[in-house]
Amino acid sequence: MTGFDLSVGAARAAFAPLGLDLSDEEALYRHTVAVWCQLVEPGDSAAGRVVASLGPVEALARLAAASPFAELTAREDSDARKRWMPRLSARAVSDTLRIAGARGVRLVTRHDPVWPQQLDDLGPHAPMCLWVRGDAAALARLDPSVAVVGARAASGYGDLVARELAAELAGSGIPVVSGGAYGIDGAAHRAALSAGGLTVALLAGGAERAYPAGHTQLIDHIAATGIVASEVPCGSAPTKWRFLQRNRLIAALSTATVVVEAGWRSGSLNTAGHAAALGRGLGAVPGPITSPGSAGTHRLIRDYGGAACITSPDDVRELLGLAAASRGDGGPTPRAGGAAERAEDRGRTDDTTRVRDALSARIGRDADDVARRAGMAVDEVQAMLGLLRLEGAVLVGADGWRLAALHG
Amino acid sequence: MTGFDLSVGAARAAFAPLGLDLSDEEALYRHTVAVWCQLVEPGDSAAGRVVASLGPVEALARLAAASPFAELTAREDSDARKRWMPRLSARAVSDTLRIAGARGVRLVTRHDPVWPQQLDDLGPHAPMCLWVRGDAAALARLDPSVAVVGARAASGYGDLVARELAAELAGSGIPVVSGGAYGIDGAAHRAALSAGGLTVALLAGGAERAYPAGHTQLIDHIAATGIVASEVPCGSAPTKWRFLQRNRLIAALSTATVVVEAGWRSGSLNTAGHAAALGRGLGAVPGPITSPGSAGTHRLIRDYGGAACITSPDDVRELLGLAAASRGDGGPTPRAGGAAERAEDRGRTDDTTRVRDALSARIGRDADDVARRAGMAVDEVQAMLGLLRLEGAVLVGADGWRLAALHG
Repeated sequence: MTGFDLSVGAARAAFAPLGLDLSDEEALYRHTVAVWCQLVEPGDSAAGRVVASLGPVEALARLAAASPFAELTAREDSDARKRWMPRLSARAVSDTLRIAGARGVRLVTRHDPVWPQQLDDLGPHAPMCLWVRGDAAALARLDPSVAVVGARAASGYGDLVARELAAELAGSGIPVVSGGAYGIDGAAHRAALSAGGLTVALLAGGAERAYPAGHTQLIDHIAATGIVASEVPCGSAPTKWRFLQRNRLIAALSTATVVVEAGWRSGSLNTAGHAAALGRGLGAVPGPITSPGSAGTHRLIRDYGGAACITSPDDVRELLGLAAASRGDGGPTPRAGGAAERAEDRGRTDDTTRVRDALSARIGRDADDVARRAGMAVDEVQAMLGLLRLEGAVLVGADGWRLAALHG
Repeated sequence: MTGFDLSVGAARAAFAPLGLDLSDEEALYRHTVAVWCQLVEPGDSAAGRVVASLGPVEALARLAAASPFAELTAREDSDARKRWMPRLSARAVSDTLRIAGARGVRLVTRHDPVWPQQLDDLGPHAPMCLWVRGDAAALARLDPSVAVVGARAASGYGDLVARELAAELAGSGIPVVSGGAYGIDGAAHRAALSAGGLTVALLAGGAERAYPAGHTQLIDHIAATGIVASEVPCGSAPTKWRFLQRNRLIAALSTATVVVEAGWRSGSLNTAGHAAALGRGLGAVPGPITSPGSAGTHRLIRDYGGAACITSPDDVRELLGLAAASRGDGGPTPRAGGAAERAEDRGRTDDTTRVRDALSARIGRDADDVARRAGMAVDEVQAMLGLLRLEGAVLVGADGWRLAALHG
């Protein structure tokens, strides 16, 4: 290895600009995470696997020692090193951390209590860390949350709908996640801010810079009360790949994704695809069939196992598993209890009921998702789903498991 | 009975205004159908049962002779006679037939080769007959056909979409059925006429009168090349009940129903409900969520087992089981063969394939419907569906059977 310094001293020195009071272990851990973040592009599953298996410190030590990774095939190992090694630069890491310190960007890792665990649903594609401007603690408050996304070239209709949905949802306590872009994203962020709600902008480039530049003021406003975050280190430019990977992050961080307006081949369909693949809620807002801006949302609604047709904030709440807001009610009422309530319920409700409660008649969910919602082990859930299927109480299709509606 | 004359002579005299060359048997049959039509309101299932069981002639003879109907309970029998007897009037029947003769309205019964057999899917609620102005022979050409229906108070958007869909579909040889009303119905009929296609107006009152009166000219134009039909006798006023029953007739006559625009409680949702109940194709056109005229169509799309989201004529063709029109192609290409082609196929394709072909991944169908489409016996089909279900190839839900899409 090129003499890269993996010592605690180097870690402490690199982290000095962030002015944190770190233990040796923490400094080392955080430094190696920052290094990994520098080495890999978002979604690099080889890195995800070795880091998940060995931890970032040990994985980096092996990389530096050129000792093969048992987690990878020889070919994967060789390809990965070719990708990673040229990017190993102490200078790049210290530059990143200096920018982070100067711009108030925090590094949030899996060791942080505020780490949004829903990101781990991405498996080996999960981000190494998040670089966060703003209220990092609010990361822990994004379940439920809704991604409101859509075309940059929004129509007046799309802009209006994005504002109305975001204002109503954020105003009632549901965080609104988006990508900080022109068009639908910007409308959603602005409306959430105006409503005094929490909003999260996930950027494709470094969290310290506004992209697009025309949204510098908006993104500063978001950071002032909400969250601006990225998985790429400070100083990174947004690239096409990073935009696509940022989309997966939006989908994974949010409980549900709602596409407000999207052309036939819009990037928002990519976000929607990630949401569907992750078993997250997915909704799309219909519009005039004469509007190209609604061609993509209609495509989502039409396709088998497709998106819920969203026509109101209450439709979004339903997608989130929340009861419709009563008029004058300040916040959403959970339909099913939270984790604590579920645990308490164990004595009272049987497993069948809990699996049923974790299913929807409209949205297919895979067994992992059902297990997560039911607070049960996946194999327990799979067996239960099999039984319920025999009874005709549940259906399984390409989009996963769903309740059979008895009165259609 | 009140001296009502059931003789052949009376039948011939009553039918004289229509100037038909009828055998004694035909004259008697048609006369008793016309009488039944006078006695009952549309959808009277007690009448449907006794006429289906005994035939109209024998059923009327028993009614006249006050002999009980074995098909009805004593209570049903008594209630039915109370409904029917006060309406028994030779004068009313001859008036109806005189108007029919004067206005060129034909009586089409189940004995006519042009009788649209899809109406018999209504079972005991099927109409006794149809009173038809225009090209009665075209009744036999309505499979496939599409009902294009919607709000009377259509928006400019709804009007445009109805016109575009109807013109494209009718122009490519798919008959357009509707209700002759203001708004969407009128737009659909007009566009179909302009495109030189076949269009059918089903009226809630007598076929000889235009309702609404403002559509007198339009309805005359429809009768000139297409069909204006009603199940109630000439001289009957449209009533609320008859409008609702007329909606069931639109749904039953058409292969699929597409709702273009509908308020939250629009009558078009009633037509849609009939289409769904009959296992017919059902589609709805999305629109701006800010438009009250699209609230009903979004409701149809959203509801479980709901309507297909229709954004183009090709979406309607898919609903009809037809392949998308190629550009420059004069007419639709059947995706599955017609009845004759299916019969020919018997040697080549096995029953499983035929049952699969009769299913859709999107629209649930009941076993009767599947059997009809497959040209197989219902119990044969039910057994096959059970096997396919075990294989996971089909799903069953509240809306019936559908294909499991393997690649969602």
